[in-house]
Amino acid sequence: MRAICKMRPETGASLETLPIPSIGPREVLVRVRAATICGTDLHIYRWDEWAASRIKPPMPFGHEMAGDIVAMGEDVTTLQVGDYVGAESHFVCGHCYQCRIGESHICQNVKILGVDRPGCFAEYVSIDAYNAWPTSRDLPPAVAAAQEPFGNAVHTAFSTPLAARTVLVTGCGPIGLMAIAIASATGAATIIATDTAPHRREAAMAFGATEVLDALAPDVIDRIMASTGSVGVDVLLEMSGNPAALKQGFAALRFGGSAVLLGICSRPIAEFDLTNTVVFKGANVQGISGRKMFDTWYQTKRLVETGRVDLRPLITRHFPLEEFETAFELMLSGDALKCALYPHGLDGAW
Amino acid sequence: MRAICKMRPETGASLETLPIPSIGPREVLVRVRAATICGTDLHIYRWDEWAASRIKPPMPFGHEMAGDIVAMGEDVTTLQVGDYVGAESHFVCGHCYQCRIGESHICQNVKILGVDRPGCFAEYVSIDAYNAWPTSRDLPPAVAAAQEPFGNAVHTAFSTPLAARTVLVTGCGPIGLMAIAIASATGAATIIATDTAPHRREAAMAFGATEVLDALAPDVIDRIMASTGSVGVDVLLEMSGNPAALKQGFAALRFGGSAVLLGICSRPIAEFDLTNTVVFKGANVQGISGRKMFDTWYQTKRLVETGRVDLRPLITRHFPLEEFETAFELMLSGDALKCALYPHGLDGAW
Amino acid sequence: MRAICKMRPETGASLETLPIPSIGPREVLVRVRAATICGTDLHIYRWDEWAASRIKPPMPFGHEMAGDIVAMGEDVTTLQVGDYVGAESHFVCGHCYQCRIGESHICQNVKILGVDRPGCFAEYVSIDAYNAWPTSRDLPPAVAAAQEPFGNAVHTAFSTPLAARTVLVTGCGPIGLMAIAIASATGAATIIATDTAPHRREAAMAFGATEVLDALAPDVIDRIMASTGSVGVDVLLEMSGNPAALKQGFAALRFGGSAVLLGICSRPIAEFDLTNTVVFKGANVQGISGRKMFDTWYQTKRLVETGRVDLRPLITRHFPLEEFETAFELMLSGDALKCALYPHGLDGAW
Amino acid sequence: MRAICKMRPETGASLETLPIPSIGPREVLVRVRAATICGTDLHIYRWDEWAASRIKPPMPFGHEMAGDIVAMGEDVTTLQVGDYVGAESHFVCGHCYQCRIGESHICQNVKILGVDRPGCFAEYVSIDAYNAWPTSRDLPPAVAAAQEPFGNAVHTAFSTPLAARTVLVTGCGPIGLMAIAIASATGAATIIATDTAPHRREAAMAFGATEVLDALAPDVIDRIMASTGSVGVDVLLEMSGNPAALKQGFAALRFGGSAVLLGICSRPIAEFDLTNTVVFKGANVQGISGRKMFDTWYQTKRLVETGRVDLRPLITRHFPLEEFETAFELMLSGDALKCALYPHGLDGAW
Repeated sequence: MRAICKMRPETGASLETLPIPSIGPREVLVRVRAATICGTDLHIYRWDEWAASRIKPPMPFGHEMAGDIVAMGEDVTTLQVGDYVGAESHFVCGHCYQCRIGESHICQNVKILGVDRPGCFAEYVSIDAYNAWPTSRDLPPAVAAAQEPFGNAVHTAFSTPLAARTVLVTGCGPIGLMAIAIASATGAATIIATDTAPHRREAAMAFGATEVLDALAPDVIDRIMASTGSVGVDVLLEMSGNPAALKQGFAALRFGGSAVLLGICSRPIAEFDLTNTVVFKGANVQGISGRKMFDTWYQTKRLVETGRVDLRPLITRHFPLEEFETAFELMLSGDALKCALYPHGLDGAW
Repeated sequence: MRAICKMRPETGASLETLPIPSIGPREVLVRVRAATICGTDLHIYRWDEWAASRIKPPMPFGHEMAGDIVAMGEDVTTLQVGDYVGAESHFVCGHCYQCRIGESHICQNVKILGVDRPGCFAEYVSIDAYNAWPTSRDLPPAVAAAQEPFGNAVHTAFSTPLAARTVLVTGCGPIGLMAIAIASATGAATIIATDTAPHRREAAMAFGATEVLDALAPDVIDRIMASTGSVGVDVLLEMSGNPAALKQGFAALRFGGSAVLLGICSRPIAEFDLTNTVVFKGANVQGISGRKMFDTWYQTKRLVETGRVDLRPLITRHFPLEEFETAFELMLSGDALKCALYPHGLDGAW
Repeated sequence: MRAICKMRPETGASLETLPIPSIGPREVLVRVRAATICGTDLHIYRWDEWAASRIKPPMPFGHEMAGDIVAMGEDVTTLQVGDYVGAESHFVCGHCYQCRIGESHICQNVKILGVDRPGCFAEYVSIDAYNAWPTSRDLPPAVAAAQEPFGNAVHTAFSTPLAARTVLVTGCGPIGLMAIAIASATGAATIIATDTAPHRREAAMAFGATEVLDALAPDVIDRIMASTGSVGVDVLLEMSGNPAALKQGFAALRFGGSAVLLGICSRPIAEFDLTNTVVFKGANVQGISGRKMFDTWYQTKRLVETGRVDLRPLITRHFPLEEFETAFELMLSGDALKCALYPHGLDGAW
Repeated sequence: MRAICKMRPETGASLETLPIPSIGPREVLVRVRAATICGTDLHIYRWDEWAASRIKPPMPFGHEMAGDIVAMGEDVTTLQVGDYVGAESHFVCGHCYQCRIGESHICQNVKILGVDRPGCFAEYVSIDAYNAWPTSRDLPPAVAAAQEPFGNAVHTAFSTPLAARTVLVTGCGPIGLMAIAIASATGAATIIATDTAPHRREAAMAFGATEVLDALAPDVIDRIMASTGSVGVDVLLEMSGNPAALKQGFAALRFGGSAVLLGICSRPIAEFDLTNTVVFKGANVQGISGRKMFDTWYQTKRLVETGRVDLRPLITRHFPLEEFETAFELMLSGDALKCALYPHGLDGAW
C-alpha cells in the first residue's frame, strides 16, 4: 500500500510503498477514505525539536482519519466488517491509575496514532477495536476524520457551562473556530474571538462569534470590558498557545471566571502573574488533553450528526494522497484551515 | 388606583379602587406596564384548597410584571426613577441559613408577591429595590414580565448540562415550552416532548422539540427508546406535575441520567417505585423551586436579550386590566398559553 | 473442591464437591481465604421472590471474598501468581453506553459474581483479572473481603460532601454502620443515626454517630430539628430500604439538602410526597448502585489501609466453610452484623 | 479608647487614644476581647510597597477579632446586645455582579477591616451587623478571632474533595498548618507537607501531616512519588506564595489532579510552564480569595465547635494590647505562629 512516511530525521516526507498492516486479535484493519492534517503533523513534517525528540523514523504518520473496516481480529465482537469508523487516536493501557478511575484520556502509558505507532496517511491502518468509533455514513469522510480534533474542542468547551455565558476564545485556528461553533450552538450569550490574522477573524464571525478583535489592538481589554458591562468574560477558552494571548485572556477574565486551556505554549511563560490572574480573582483554570473516552465522542457525534455544528467549512481543500506536499505547504502557509487527503480517490469530497 | 383583588374567600376576583401603595426606605414604587397571568393566579382565582390555606383577602394579587420606577425609598442607591424593571417575586429574609449560604431562592421566611403581600395586577405596586430587575427597553412589557416564570424554566434547564444530551420534557404548558426553547437554544441533541393535548404538542414543535409524543399513547417508552438507541434519555425535565407523566419520564430515563423536577403534584403519588427508578439506575433527581437570586436572572436576561429564546409566542393574548375576567376564563379553558394584562393601556402589546 | 451451592429452587443451601473452575485467557483463579455473607446471600438462601426470578440453580453463590491468585490466563499481564486480592463483584461488558462513558458500575449487561456466575463460597473461584483488586497483606482476609460491601458505603457517602455537614443515616445494618464510620472519618459535624433495634443503635455510637434515635419514637423529627438548629440535616444517607425510615429521612432533610439512597425497598412506596420532600425543598437525590470502577476502590483502599476506618468490628463471627448453616442462621436472626466463612481454615481470623 | 494605629507612612505603629467609634443604622459596636495578628498586619507594620499603596494613615488596623456587642444601630434585628461575635473582615457592596450571583467573597467593591476602614486592634470596633458572626462562648476569644484566617484555610481545603485523597500542602505557616489540620479531620489518606523551617515541619506533624519534607531537599519530588505509588498527589494546597514551592507542588501533582492556590506571590513568576504543569496534565487549578459568605463560616463553626479542629495550638503567645510591639517583633522573627492581643485584659487566654 502507499503511505506518507517520515523516512529520516529531517524536514519533509515521502510517499512510500509498505505492506498492508497486520492486525492483532483485538485490532481492526481500516481502509482509509480520508485523513485530515493536524498541527502535530506539521511539526513532524518540519521536523522541529519536539518531533525529533518523539518520532522514530521510518514511519507513516497521520492520526485523523475515517474509513471502512475490512478485517478484524478474532476477539473483536462489537464491530463488523463494513463498518464506517473514525478513530480515537490515543491508545491507552487500561491499567494505570488514570485509566482505572475513568480518566484514560490522560493515560500514563498512552501511545498516539501516527506518533508512537504507524499512522493513517496511508491506504490502510490498523487500530484497536476499542479506538474505532462507528460513524453515520451521512458524514463525509473528511468530516468523520475531523471528529478527532473536533473532540478536543468539545472537551474544552464542555469543561465549563457556556450557555448564557460570556465567552472569550483566544486563537482562531481550526480548533478555536470549532470552539466558537460549539459555543454558538450551545447558547453562549456573547462570543468574543481574538486573533492577529484578519482572515481568521472573518472565519470566526462565520463560525458564530458575536465580536472579533485584533489581538494586537491596544484596546482589546477595554473593548471586552465594554462588551461585558465592565465585568469581564465568564469563560476564557485559550486555543492559541501564544503567551501574549493567554495573558490577555486572563486579564479579560472576570473575578470568579473559568479559564479552559487547550493551546500549547512552546516554552515556559516568562513573567506569569498567577496571583493577580488566578488567586485574587478566585478563578478556575482547567487544562485539557485529549478527549474523554468516550463521553466526548458521544457529544461530538451528537453535535455533528444533528447538524448543530457543521464541520465542512473547516476543510479548506481536498487532495489525493499523492499530492500531500501541496497540502502540507498550503497548511504551513497559514492560508488553509484544514486539508484532507484521500488515499483511494476523492469520493466523498465536496 | 385600580387593582384586581380577591375580596372574599370565594371564587373569582374584582376590580377595585385602592390607594397607591406607600413605600419603605428600601422599596421602589413601580408603575405597572404589563402583568402576566400564572397558574398560581388561576388557583387564587378559582379559590382552591391551596389558595384558601394561603391567601388572606382582601388583597390584590398577581406576581409577574414589568414597569417603570416612579418613586424610591430613601435608602435606595442602585436604581433610578425611570428605570424599566421586571421583578423577582420572592422577598427573602436575608438571615436564615439558606439565605446566609447563597440559597435564598429557598429562604425559610419567603414572602411572595401577590400571595403573601399585595400583588401587581394593579396600576402600581411596591417592591423591594433588591427585587427590581433592570431590563432592556428592547423587551416589550409582557416579555419583561414573563422573565419571572421563564426564570423557573431556566433554573430547571440549567440544573444539569443539556448540550449534546438527549432530553425529555414531560408537560408542554408555558413553562414546559420555555424549557424546550432553552434546550434547543443551548444545544440539546434530541428534545422529546410529551403532552396529552394536540395543540400543546404542536406548540412544542414550534418551540424546538425534535419529536413530540402523545403522553397517552401506549408506546411512548418504546418510541423514546427507539429515539435514543435503546439507552433512554440523559435528562428528564418534569414540567407537568402529573404523576403518570412523571412515572413515564422516570421509566424513560437512562441509567445514570438526571431528572429535574419543577412540576407540582397536587397530592402524594400513590405508588412510587423509587428503588427501580432512582436507586438501581444510579439516577440523580433535583427539585426546583424559584430562581437563583440572581444568577438565574442574569442567565434569563442573556437568553432573552440576545434573542436566543423568543418569549413572544408564549403570550397568546393582551388585555386591558379591566378585561381580566376574559383573560382568566381564557386561561382556565386551556386554550391560551399566557395572557397579559395592561393597567395603563396596551402600549407595547403586539 | 468444596463449595456452598444452591442446588434446587428452594430454601437452604448445601456443601457440594465441584471441580476447580477453569479460567479463560483474561481470568485468574483465586484460592479463597475468606468470604463474607451479604444480605443478597440471605435472599438466595431463603429463596425469596427476587432470588427465584434471578438465580439459576445449581450454582455456588457468594460474592464477597479475598484470597490468593494461584493461576492466571495467558492474556493477564498486570497481576502475578501469589497476589493477594479482593474482588469487584460486577463483571461489566465494556461496550454499552454506560461502560463507554465511564459509568460501568451501571453497565447494562452486568453479570454479578455469585448471582449470574459461580460464586465464592468455595475453595476456589475464577474471576476476570479486571475484577481482581490487589490488597495489602496487612488486611485480614475477612476485612479484605468486606471491601466490596464497604465500597457501597463509600460510593454512597462520597456522593456528596460530608465534611462539616450534618448527616442523618437511616438504618444501622452493616452498610449503614460503615457509612457512619466514613462520615466520622471524613469530618461530618453531626452524625445522627436511626434504627429500631437497640443493639444496632449501640453499634452506631461505637462506629461514630454523635446521636442515635429510635426510628419508632414519636419525636424523631423534632429531635433532629433540635440538633440542627431547626434547619434539618444537610445530608440524608438512606441505608434501610424501609419506606417509613425513608420518609422520615426526607422529612428531616433541610431545604437544599442532599439525599443519597442505597437502601432497597422491596416494593413501590405508597403515598410518596415528591413535591413537598424534593421539589419545594430544592433537594437533590442520588441513587447508588455498585461501586465506581475503580475510583471507589482506591478510596476504599485508602480508608481501610490507613486505618481511618476499621472494618474488623463488623465481622461478628468467623466460621469454617462447612459451618455455613450456623453462619446463615445467625445472620438471619439479626444478631450478627456480618459473618465470615473460611474455606481453608481460620487462618487470619481474629 | 486605646488603639494601635499607623499614624504616618513609615515603619511601626503606635498606641493612640481615639474616640469610641460611632455606628450607623446597620452596624454594631463590638467591645474587642481578643484580636489576632495576621501576615497582612505585618505588611502594614513594616510599611512595605503593598501597604504604602493601600493604607491611608492615620488609622487603627487589625482585622481578626472577637468580642461582645455593646451597641447596635436602629435597623439591626438579627443580633442582640451581649452577643459574642467574630467578624468577617470583608465588607461587601451587595450590588456588583459577583455579589448578585452569590460570590460576594470576590465583591468588586470590597472594603476590608483594618485595611480600608478602621481596624480592631482597639478596645472597640464598629462593624456591619451583616459581618458579625455569632460564636459559642465555649471558644476562647483568641480562637473565636482566628476563625477569620481559619476560614481561608477552610475555603481552600473545601474547594476540592480531600477525603481518601493524597494531599500535598506547600508552606507550613499558620494557614498551611490549619489546612493540614482540616485535611486530617476530613479524612485525607496521605498528607505531605513541605517547608524550609524545621520547627514548622515539626508543627506540621503535630497538626496531622503524615509526612514532612524539607522543601530544599533535592529529592522532594522523588519522595512524593514514592509515597503516592509513582502517581503524584491528587491535591496540591499551595499555602506558601513561594514560586519555588509552587513549582515543586505542580511538579508533584498527578495527571488529572487539583491545585488550590491561596499563597500570594509578591511578584510574577519568572518562568511558569503552564503547558506541562496544567494543560498536558489535565489539571484543575482554583484560586482562593476570602471566605464564602457565609457558607465557609458555617463550616468553620462546625469544625471548631465540634472539636474536629483545635485552633489553640496556633496561638503561640497572648499579650495585653499595649505590648503589641513585642508581639509584632515576635511574629516578624518567624518564631511564633500567631500572637493574640487583648485590649481589656487577658481574660480567656490560656
